[in-house]
Amino acid sequence: MAKDLSKRGLAALDAHWRAANYLAVGQIYLLDNHLLTEPLTADHIKPRLLGHWGTSPGLNLVHTHLNRVVKERDLDALCVWGPGHGGPAVLANSWLEGSYTATYPDVTRDAAGMARLFRQFSFPGGVPSHVAPETPGSIHEGGELGYSLAHAYGAALDNPRLLVACVIGDGEAETGPLAASWHSNKFLDPVHDGAVLPILHLNGYKIANPTVLSRLPEAELDELLRGYGHEPIHVSGTDPMRVHRDMARAFDRAVDRIQAVRSQARANGGTEHGRPRWPMIVLRTPKGWTGPGIVDDEPVEGTWRSHQVPLGGVRENPDHLRQLEAWLRSYRPRELFDAQGRPVPAVLEYVPEGTRRLGATPHANGGLLTRDLPTAPLERFAVPVDKPGSTLHEPTRVLGGLLAQVMADTADRRDFRVVGPDETASNRLDALFEVTGKAWQARTVATDEHLARDGRVMEILSEHLCQGWLEGYLLTGRHGLFSCYEAFVHIVDSMVNQHIKWLRTSRELAWRAPVPSLNYLLTSHVWRQDHNGFSHQDPGFVDHVLNKSPDVVRVYLPPDANTLLSVAEHVLHSRDYVNVVVAGKQPTFDWLSLDEARAHCARGAGVWEWAGTDDGSRDPDVVLACAGDVPTQEVLAAAGLLRTHLPELAVRVVNVVDMARLMPKEEHPHGMPDFEYDALFTADKPVIFAYHGYPWLIHRLAYRRSGHRHLHVRGYKESGTTTTPFDMVVRNDLDRYRLVMDVIDRVPGLAVRAAAVRQTMADARTRHHAWIREHGTDLPEVAHWSWTG
Amino acid sequence: MAKDLSKRGLAALDAHWRAANYLAVGQIYLLDNHLLTEPLTADHIKPRLLGHWGTSPGLNLVHTHLNRVVKERDLDALCVWGPGHGGPAVLANSWLEGSYTATYPDVTRDAAGMARLFRQFSFPGGVPSHVAPETPGSIHEGGELGYSLAHAYGAALDNPRLLVACVIGDGEAETGPLAASWHSNKFLDPVHDGAVLPILHLNGYKIANPTVLSRLPEAELDELLRGYGHEPIHVSGTDPMRVHRDMARAFDRAVDRIQAVRSQARANGGTEHGRPRWPMIVLRTPKGWTGPGIVDDEPVEGTWRSHQVPLGGVRENPDHLRQLEAWLRSYRPRELFDAQGRPVPAVLEYVPEGTRRLGATPHANGGLLTRDLPTAPLERFAVPVDKPGSTLHEPTRVLGGLLAQVMADTADRRDFRVVGPDETASNRLDALFEVTGKAWQARTVATDEHLARDGRVMEILSEHLCQGWLEGYLLTGRHGLFSCYEAFVHIVDSMVNQHIKWLRTSRELAWRAPVPSLNYLLTSHVWRQDHNGFSHQDPGFVDHVLNKSPDVVRVYLPPDANTLLSVAEHVLHSRDYVNVVVAGKQPTFDWLSLDEARAHCARGAGVWEWAGTDDGSRDPDVVLACAGDVPTQEVLAAAGLLRTHLPELAVRVVNVVDMARLMPKEEHPHGMPDFEYDALFTADKPVIFAYHGYPWLIHRLAYRRSGHRHLHVRGYKESGTTTTPFDMVVRNDLDRYRLVMDVIDRVPGLAVRAAAVRQTMADARTRHHAWIREHGTDLPEVAHWSWTG
Repeated sequence: MAKDLSKRGLAALDAHWRAANYLAVGQIYLLDNHLLTEPLTADHIKPRLLGHWGTSPGLNLVHTHLNRVVKERDLDALCVWGPGHGGPAVLANSWLEGSYTATYPDVTRDAAGMARLFRQFSFPGGVPSHVAPETPGSIHEGGELGYSLAHAYGAALDNPRLLVACVIGDGEAETGPLAASWHSNKFLDPVHDGAVLPILHLNGYKIANPTVLSRLPEAELDELLRGYGHEPIHVSGTDPMRVHRDMARAFDRAVDRIQAVRSQARANGGTEHGRPRWPMIVLRTPKGWTGPGIVDDEPVEGTWRSHQVPLGGVRENPDHLRQLEAWLRSYRPRELFDAQGRPVPAVLEYVPEGTRRLGATPHANGGLLTRDLPTAPLERFAVPVDKPGSTLHEPTRVLGGLLAQVMADTADRRDFRVVGPDETASNRLDALFEVTGKAWQARTVATDEHLARDGRVMEILSEHLCQGWLEGYLLTGRHGLFSCYEAFVHIVDSMVNQHIKWLRTSRELAWRAPVPSLNYLLTSHVWRQDHNGFSHQDPGFVDHVLNKSPDVVRVYLPPDANTLLSVAEHVLHSRDYVNVVVAGKQPTFDWLSLDEARAHCARGAGVWEWAGTDDGSRDPDVVLACAGDVPTQEVLAAAGLLRTHLPELAVRVVNVVDMARLMPKEEHPHGMPDFEYDALFTADKPVIFAYHGYPWLIHRLAYRRSGHRHLHVRGYKESGTTTTPFDMVVRNDLDRYRLVMDVIDRVPGLAVRAAAVRQTMADARTRHHAWIREHGTDLPEVAHWSWTG
Repeated sequence: MAKDLSKRGLAALDAHWRAANYLAVGQIYLLDNHLLTEPLTADHIKPRLLGHWGTSPGLNLVHTHLNRVVKERDLDALCVWGPGHGGPAVLANSWLEGSYTATYPDVTRDAAGMARLFRQFSFPGGVPSHVAPETPGSIHEGGELGYSLAHAYGAALDNPRLLVACVIGDGEAETGPLAASWHSNKFLDPVHDGAVLPILHLNGYKIANPTVLSRLPEAELDELLRGYGHEPIHVSGTDPMRVHRDMARAFDRAVDRIQAVRSQARANGGTEHGRPRWPMIVLRTPKGWTGPGIVDDEPVEGTWRSHQVPLGGVRENPDHLRQLEAWLRSYRPRELFDAQGRPVPAVLEYVPEGTRRLGATPHANGGLLTRDLPTAPLERFAVPVDKPGSTLHEPTRVLGGLLAQVMADTADRRDFRVVGPDETASNRLDALFEVTGKAWQARTVATDEHLARDGRVMEILSEHLCQGWLEGYLLTGRHGLFSCYEAFVHIVDSMVNQHIKWLRTSRELAWRAPVPSLNYLLTSHVWRQDHNGFSHQDPGFVDHVLNKSPDVVRVYLPPDANTLLSVAEHVLHSRDYVNVVVAGKQPTFDWLSLDEARAHCARGAGVWEWAGTDDGSRDPDVVLACAGDVPTQEVLAAAGLLRTHLPELAVRVVNVVDMARLMPKEEHPHGMPDFEYDALFTADKPVIFAYHGYPWLIHRLAYRRSGHRHLHVRGYKESGTTTTPFDMVVRNDLDRYRLVMDVIDRVPGLAVRAAAVRQTMADARTRHHAWIREHGTDLPEVAHWSWTG
């Protein structure tokens, strides 16, 4: 148990806090006169005043006190700054501790560097106003709110020595993802994982409103937090020295408690004697604390008015200018910085050194810690394919074998996790449970299966938490996979936006080491919602991610088990990407042997000679293209029908695995050059493209190709319900019969009997409708179809 | 206070519950022998066994008991079924109470109707397996989980006589949106709003896992729920008659408490004496209760194995068949249904009548209750425009005037709400606060502004709650607007998917009356994130919704204040749409007078003759097209530059407000025919299109047009940071100089001096880069630009 700090110690903490506050205000306002060596004039002020002051003094307080416990106890710590719009605070602290200069040597820890620090903030060509990839020590962008606590837990998993502090703003606490994140403590293993210390900062206001949590009676808030499984430590106040004293005590108490939980769990080898109640801190201080109290007769400090820039008219309004100068001088900068602008020793007394500095922890630059993932030879998991389309496998179940092996091979390293909203088994990945369990720290009963305190599969019915945990895990250098129902991955559309932006920016920062990619396995897809129907049908995530930075985004639609294996191996070894893999879990024909699958996936798109009738070499009459498992099956069935009914027609079958191949080379690194596109799809022949998702995506990707005006795409067009697999494709005009009709409608100069063939196809569709209404099942000829070449 | 029920009363409740359970099982399994009048054989069983049994007995229990309190107390009630995948239960109850037959007369309440009820369930051409628009009494699709409680609160708002019960599954309770929804009680006014009665159903399991809340110690769960502001009433058990007794008591206690809260608040005229603690019920009963206990030696009842179809092999496995028969007979169907298959009187004893039936409440078919919204003449709010581009207004502030008037004009009716994540004022809609306040039931302090217990603006930092509340409000027949930061509306991508699907399906149901549209105002858009930068830049919501059913989706990009007014008037009067309106909040040039704006918006796209140099009639050399406020400004600036530098060039300026106009007529009801498109954009001249969002969206909409190969689109391509407005457009090649260069690059046969003009433009971009790096502001010629015609 720590003793109370001496008066001198408190004074040092206060000096550090004042210095950080001074630097935060300076970043928002000052272009010049950084050390206030002369009276402040309008010329010293930035032309555009941008940034967020309100949260900054609170963040500075947390950083100041976190420094102390880290240094005194030599802790391995990381901090996630939920109110990351308070960029000035985190930047100020990084500069003070020297990690900023270590990362950006031109921003020196002296007057010249301070000038740069101030000028660059929210300045064109400078640094963003929020905590961002550019910020040393950060794994969490402070823009879209809601994910801090999930990120913190993700960082703590499998990092048994790590303490992850997480500042949660009371605004952010109103979001759904944050509200769900509190229960993450039911998934944290005190033996194998690190600790998370939530610090709920109640400064009382959002942009223009009070916050819900800050207006609960303290007893009610306390019940809520205890209900979340925490032991809250409350710190409240407006008097800095009292708050310093209480905050130091709170940190000591919290860290003591964490260490006690850990020692006990690790001594006992587990938490069989009950899930621990982890500590947390509730910090209640005024918004914009130490800023201007009243501006233009309106209260500012302690209200929402201090959210951004509390004195907006400094360049025009002498009163504002005077208030700003008084505000800056209230921190007594001459006590804090020497004549050269360097922080004096008292300011730095509790600042840790080396990688113990929060801005220098390698966990926040996780690629530094990444080890390549061991993947056993795919031959061990591949399905044998002597002849295309003669056997069926569930592709995701085959993938499960590979994932289980990766899980087994990382049993000691513990740097691989699979997350999903309660669907790992339903998605046929249950081989994983032969080598690990599902993380679970809550109560268990005799009938439970596969729950394990140290499990590395994580299931909770929250796509937000799956995504947030995994992001935190990846950004701290580990590997993972998110397996999700295709339709519901839209729940994390906005989160993946932010992650893609993070990766895109990180790639431009030489000091950021590449991190493992965020890999999605989207299954239980649009075509096979037999149990669930329309609400579960949405293939639009691919469209969503393909709008984002092409440097980061990859989309794969492997058509069978072996191609899924090959794609999976590739994405698991990749770095700094968001890989979206769409693959079914239902029995699917095996088209390619492993070797063929590897070659096909390496090309990303290619002709399946064995399926066509164009003899490989000559120009075909028509191209049947496909992407996705169900469209591939329908295209092959259509190719078979054409072979039977119009054998003289030269049909080429093209399968696309890597969707970005369709894009122009200039627009995506995987895009194929025009000559290659033309060689594959022809420049002037009809192309009937059966696509897994919304058909216009293919047009959006291929509109620049010379053959585009001959491109006809079939796909999902929002027609669905609870029905059979074949009825789904018929409803959306993606079925084999429709595809044959499309060919006949588009190939010029066909034999006269083509009209009769077309009628045969139309009749088959009519038969389908009658049969299904009567029997509730698919036509036997469809249900028992297989490729006969 | 209600007395305990008699034994006879409990027996009647049990009979109803058994009948509902029987009907639920029957829907999943039976094609024939519906009343078990003969021994069950494989021939009686459906060929495909689909649906969810696990949650059904719990839903049936709630429905049974809710019926009783509704009938005994003559309550106006609605129920939101969170675990709506338990469709069989809700359908069973609707059939029992007769509301199903009232809605679908061919499904009679007798043996023939029972046969139809069973057959149609999850059968092709029948009804979905989930609660869906097809389900009488429903406003909540049971597919994507997380929104039940927010929907319930939305339904309760401004319905002071209504009781909205809401069953929350313990799976759903793990989601972020649901976790956030608990705090909705801080926004519910007991005077003007109805009551919400949450019923947390802990059946213990999700698809394959225990649930978090069901494994908390009861004391910890109780703390959590009290922390949420509720008074939990716990009901637990496995013995039906005991549970009936306790459940009846719990409902009586809860309704008594609600009535006491209401009377007190209404007598006092408010809740000044403290926010009430609303009751809730915690119901703990086994998953798949009364279903098969053990199947193939595995425990099923009371475990996750009863989630879907607990006996899967009934057609092949005689043991399964025997178990199914025993299960069905355990409900003693002969006691429940007469020889004609009609429920006997005892079963119906507590079933309410007429619109008191949960399946017949008009609140669940809200269009029946909708009154057209009064909108004052737009002339009162419009800005005067004598000459295009000579004045500036903040479009959303102008809109605020209209919205405030609508709010004032509905002061007594209380059927209009504006929701937003803490941004109403920041989005310049603060005129609203002159006529109403922000709903707030928690503590207030002296410095608060615009908070009001009966306010009809709702702000919480959760887009999920804004969306969920509004959906519930609209589906019960009232009107509203969701004002949101453009980038962060992606947070509700998946929710709007589900709402669009709901509307799409509803439109096909003659009995569902049209409901007011879901209207988005997306502002603080991609081009003006001066404070926030890259994380706040994402215009992709438009792409997302345009993938969905064209019958439902509308997208508008009004370029100035008066066009925004005209669009707003239109969308506020519309029904059954999702309208996305994107408009800036920053000062924007006024281009059109109100009359011109109305005419332009009615067309959706049109030539701005005054801006071009093609003299209205003759074929232009080039078309400059624009959609969105910032692109419109840049296009007009480019048109001005061309007029100056290349006056002989015939430039046509086209502005697009209604994005769907670009689509083919066959693909969207607003799509324009080809002749109209060609008349506007030409069939063969270069079109330089400056678009607000991702440029490829325009290609995806227009790829079928004959002029498509001459279409060149500029837009946002994910290049952003904290910077100036003009730097943003330069970074994304959407700026006036780049547009002029595009014209010069694409128009053939230009005068020789065009090359010099192009260089002048390139030089201006270079000057921009130098200036901004030096000054941090935009070039004076840009900052002070205005249209001079």
